[in-house]
Amino acid sequence: MPEPKRRSEKSRKAIYDAALALVAEIGYPRTTIEGIAARAGVGKQTIYRWWNSKADVLLEAFLDLGEQAEQAARGEGAEPRQYAIPDTGDLAADLKAVLRATVDELRDPKFEAPSRALAAEGLVDAELGRVFVAKLLEPSLQLYVDRLRAAQKAGQVRPEIDPRIALELFVSPLAQRWLQHTAPFSYAYTDTLVDYALYGLAPR
Amino acid sequence: MPEPKRRSEKSRKAIYDAALALVAEIGYPRTTIEGIAARAGVGKQTIYRWWNSKADVLLEAFLDLGEQAEQAARGEGAEPRQYAIPDTGDLAADLKAVLRATVDELRDPKFEAPSRALAAEGLVDAELGRVFVAKLLEPSLQLYVDRLRAAQKAGQVRPEIDPRIALELFVSPLAQRWLQHTAPFSYAYTDTLVDYALYGLAPR
Repeated sequence: MPEPKRRSEKSRKAIYDAALALVAEIGYPRTTIEGIAARAGVGKQTIYRWWNSKADVLLEAFLDLGEQAEQAARGEGAEPRQYAIPDTGDLAADLKAVLRATVDELRDPKFEAPSRALAAEGLVDAELGRVFVAKLLEPSLQLYVDRLRAAQKAGQVRPEIDPRIALELFVSPLAQRWLQHTAPFSYAYTDTLVDYALYGLAPR
Repeated sequence: MPEPKRRSEKSRKAIYDAALALVAEIGYPRTTIEGIAARAGVGKQTIYRWWNSKADVLLEAFLDLGEQAEQAARGEGAEPRQYAIPDTGDLAADLKAVLRATVDELRDPKFEAPSRALAAEGLVDAELGRVFVAKLLEPSLQLYVDRLRAAQKAGQVRPEIDPRIALELFVSPLAQRWLQHTAPFSYAYTDTLVDYALYGLAPR
């Protein structure tokens, strides 16, 4: 019986789209389950059947957005997402490639407005912030931890370095430029961050 | 005629306190000139005589808060604030000292709540964000630029390094941990950031 399944997938996507659009347009505090249901053209019971709260809906909508971006980048019919940063043996090149892809994603208007609205709310709503950091941000940072650990095994990163701190040298500057508009960002900028982090500011 | 001057200084401080308290308690969007005036016990014309907008009031309230923190750290009767990072000749020690002072400031509840409320609003109100970055954040970042330039002259930082990017390797990670609660921060953490940034992640 494929029909009910297909219909529910369609509703699910409509709900994601409605949730992302609303949070971008009117902000997280004024986004409600009722508003999402109305915009998606479903009953609010449909939403409550699948999710417990608007934070849950948005969390899954963002995860889905990430999957879509990944699939678009890798082309139609690509293998399912590989949850790892490539390891070509060249750490600088691998980090530069993944940060360039992040620059593209941060510039995508579909991602920009809802992410910004949610990040803003996460600063003042501690519980929301905690959930999004734990479920969205931290898992993506762990991919850098894994890649840096592999580089330590290969002798390309000093063994005493803590990878969870090290990754912040290139991830946090980009995050701050994007979030707070402190300065423009580009591929040249993220490439530079990787070089500075790997080789240091002091003469060698 | 010292009396009017003294009275107006007192009103000015009351207005700063009221503005910071309100933005922390009810957020930037709901903070109004009328609300600040009522809480400070002054007429709203008093506020409009000195400032054009609530953003202006808050900007000066934050500048004043920074001056107070600086004066408290340096002791009663200290010289006026020196707008420079100390240069003892030891770049690592100087950066660690200023970042430890920043850790203290970020943990001060007087600073924490209004800063967070304003940072959140700056993410979604582009004009407010631009003013606060230009008038509060960027001038403090320029102090790092100056210190790194002096270190370049002293041969402690490679000549080809762009100081405006380099400072982000230790400033942005702390900002992100503070703003987004991605992980705890401590003196040990900021010391580590400085060491990683100066000496790099790759073996020397």
